[in-house]
Amino acid sequence: MKHAKNNIEESTCKIADEICLPDSTLPCVVIIGGGFAGLALVEKLKNKELQVILFDKNNFHQFQPLLYQVATSALQPDSIVFPFRKQINGYKNVLFRLAEVEEIQSSSNTIITNKGKVHYDYLILATGTTTNFFGMDNVESHSLGMKDIRDSLNIRHLMLQNLEQAAITCDEKERDALTNFVIVGGGPAGVEMAGALAEFRKYILPKDYPEYPSSIMNIYLIEAIDELLSTMSDKASSMTLKYLKDLDVQVLVNESVSDYDGTQVTTKSGKTILAKNLIWTAGVKGQFPKGIDEKHVVRGNRIKTDANLKVEGYENIFAIGDIAAIITEQTPKGHPQVAQAAIQQGKYLGDTLLKLMKDEPIKPFEYKDKGSLATVGKRKAVADLGKFKFAGYFAWLLWSIVHLMSISGFRNRLMVGFNWTVSYFSYEKSNRVIIRNFKPKASVKNTKK
Amino acid sequence: MKHAKNNIEESTCKIADEICLPDSTLPCVVIIGGGFAGLALVEKLKNKELQVILFDKNNFHQFQPLLYQVATSALQPDSIVFPFRKQINGYKNVLFRLAEVEEIQSSSNTIITNKGKVHYDYLILATGTTTNFFGMDNVESHSLGMKDIRDSLNIRHLMLQNLEQAAITCDEKERDALTNFVIVGGGPAGVEMAGALAEFRKYILPKDYPEYPSSIMNIYLIEAIDELLSTMSDKASSMTLKYLKDLDVQVLVNESVSDYDGTQVTTKSGKTILAKNLIWTAGVKGQFPKGIDEKHVVRGNRIKTDANLKVEGYENIFAIGDIAAIITEQTPKGHPQVAQAAIQQGKYLGDTLLKLMKDEPIKPFEYKDKGSLATVGKRKAVADLGKFKFAGYFAWLLWSIVHLMSISGFRNRLMVGFNWTVSYFSYEKSNRVIIRNFKPKASVKNTKK
Repeated sequence: MKHAKNNIEESTCKIADEICLPDSTLPCVVIIGGGFAGLALVEKLKNKELQVILFDKNNFHQFQPLLYQVATSALQPDSIVFPFRKQINGYKNVLFRLAEVEEIQSSSNTIITNKGKVHYDYLILATGTTTNFFGMDNVESHSLGMKDIRDSLNIRHLMLQNLEQAAITCDEKERDALTNFVIVGGGPAGVEMAGALAEFRKYILPKDYPEYPSSIMNIYLIEAIDELLSTMSDKASSMTLKYLKDLDVQVLVNESVSDYDGTQVTTKSGKTILAKNLIWTAGVKGQFPKGIDEKHVVRGNRIKTDANLKVEGYENIFAIGDIAAIITEQTPKGHPQVAQAAIQQGKYLGDTLLKLMKDEPIKPFEYKDKGSLATVGKRKAVADLGKFKFAGYFAWLLWSIVHLMSISGFRNRLMVGFNWTVSYFSYEKSNRVIIRNFKPKASVKNTKK
Repeated sequence: MKHAKNNIEESTCKIADEICLPDSTLPCVVIIGGGFAGLALVEKLKNKELQVILFDKNNFHQFQPLLYQVATSALQPDSIVFPFRKQINGYKNVLFRLAEVEEIQSSSNTIITNKGKVHYDYLILATGTTTNFFGMDNVESHSLGMKDIRDSLNIRHLMLQNLEQAAITCDEKERDALTNFVIVGGGPAGVEMAGALAEFRKYILPKDYPEYPSSIMNIYLIEAIDELLSTMSDKASSMTLKYLKDLDVQVLVNESVSDYDGTQVTTKSGKTILAKNLIWTAGVKGQFPKGIDEKHVVRGNRIKTDANLKVEGYENIFAIGDIAAIITEQTPKGHPQVAQAAIQQGKYLGDTLLKLMKDEPIKPFEYKDKGSLATVGKRKAVADLGKFKFAGYFAWLLWSIVHLMSISGFRNRLMVGFNWTVSYFSYEKSNRVIIRNFKPKASVKNTKK
């Protein structure tokens, strides 16, 4: 590698004056994406003998596991996002630049952003995934994914607008469509969303919308295979199914969506459901700037790396988090695309880069599965922690504590904790405000940019 | 009036099936706008022998006095807005409909909304004001008003984007323009905004943007007449000026803006200021649906009413809040357009309508000025309470308590109180996140719709 120890002659981060960067004689580590993986890496590299530049298209880190609570009005958006600049306050060697990276030119060790070019010595891709509609354009145009904070707010706004419209219309069929929700995908995001909607229907709808019986709101959860939460234990899957049924969620397994026109969902088995609200959590695909040789891109649009997370075919480009796939006999599909794996990879790569720079020997990445948690609603959660598999109040309490402690920022933790406490006793979801008048299709494309 | 006591024969609220409303034999009071005046009226009419229908284009009440704190990242938007449906939970005779009222057809006692027609027996206009750019299209296209929560978020987003861009550019002139702020209007909104920006510059900028010295950010406050807070006492005006100078705000009195192209502000006296951030708080004008005879519209686009707030020339149309102008010898310009007057008018009209319906005698509206408060920053505020005029820590404490107690909703009060407490000790403004990528001009028009 270019920058082995003491082998640096001049500032290399900056090219021309397009993006202003301080002169530095340190090796330049460019990280694209400040999700769980990117931030874990920043933490490892802070105040070391490296110039770190973090690029992100947002100025904040998002705590994705709680997006569904913003979508269902339980939390305000500001409390699950955290400004990068606050995170890196006082880190002498870390810079943040708000820019979208459009292309990697590996031959010249350069990235092209929408704000200009930047040189790198080491490039780290931590760009994560986006919603995968598997080429179904009709579904994509009319439904909503739930991968970032804007998606969550869009869901919240569309949902509340439709519930308001249902109070205005006298057409029963239209009212049914406006109040029905279809969630596609029985993974944690889909299960948690279905549960949160069911609680909204149970506790908020009768008080807020006396105009119509809350029973007209139907919630469907559609899963392509034969069980929910398929990556968790059988106990977790079956308890989740029970909890959702207790909350009157209609779970359809071995079923999938074949078409959607904004009002009617058609399934593969030929069923039709009238619903103006379709939330798609059924798949993700990797997203990254162009310039990575296609032969290193594997299933799910992930990037194949070696056991040290170095992208195959490149000497100084690495991938971490959901985008990275270490394909071995033990992990034929790569590691799971979860926060835990992303954080562990970010930390690992930080240590590894520091060792590489000192010409010290490095070890391959090893994933430690700390277990899985998912919640369906108040006092309803499932936990798989090694041999211990349990469900109910204690799992829910554990879920709450783990999530609360993982949120960035003392203030955010307090805000979320406070909101949860109030809502625990009052069953309230107070943030049910439509701040942007959101409409799908036309607007989705704009607001995602 | 049509519905004197016991003179009601049939349901009159509903026309056709355009907007679904329950059948009712009660007189139908339609209120347009759920600001301070509209909500105070709703509170007076709740659970009385009337069918009340509140229309608003938003599903929430907004606490306008704190908009500037959302704009400057001190508060999250959700904590100063409050869902109407939560407010009216359990009010048996009050309905809310999310719709924009487009026209009043007084000859048939009907309003036309974007969702359909509705009949009224009594119509109350509580539609408030919007930013008045006094016909300066260039200024309107490139600057931002601060009249609702979307305006606040737009300011926040634009400000943070510009500060980010200033960290990217190497062009010093561009960086100056990106970091300079011009606030036009030396009333409470302008003064409070200027103070909050100055505190942002003092406490946040040096930590968050080590890329450039915080001294490059200039804050200008431009006021057309010779003093700030002209409706308050001389002591308040002069102390405010002192506080702002202490915070390094450049106050220009007897000055006004004549042109703005998005980068350069030109003033009447010929001065030019380079600034990509212009916040306009220099004027408001009444906004209301068409259909009110122009001869009853007075200065500032307000509607002339009699001493009972009945609109001149109509038997059953009333106006309350900022939109209403009771023109007498004592109040040649109408009452001040402030929250206090709006609340008092809403309460008064509630009592008056109930009396009218029982054929009881009514008294004219009397405004009780409870005094004025304005804050420039932490421990810096001014108060005029009758004969007591004071400034400093105690005024600031009073301002904080009065505002905290006036916010709708227990949870909101706690959230704001908590944020203020944290920020009092930490000088933090934690919500500095750009959730929507806002650009002025093109987008402004869209997002305001």
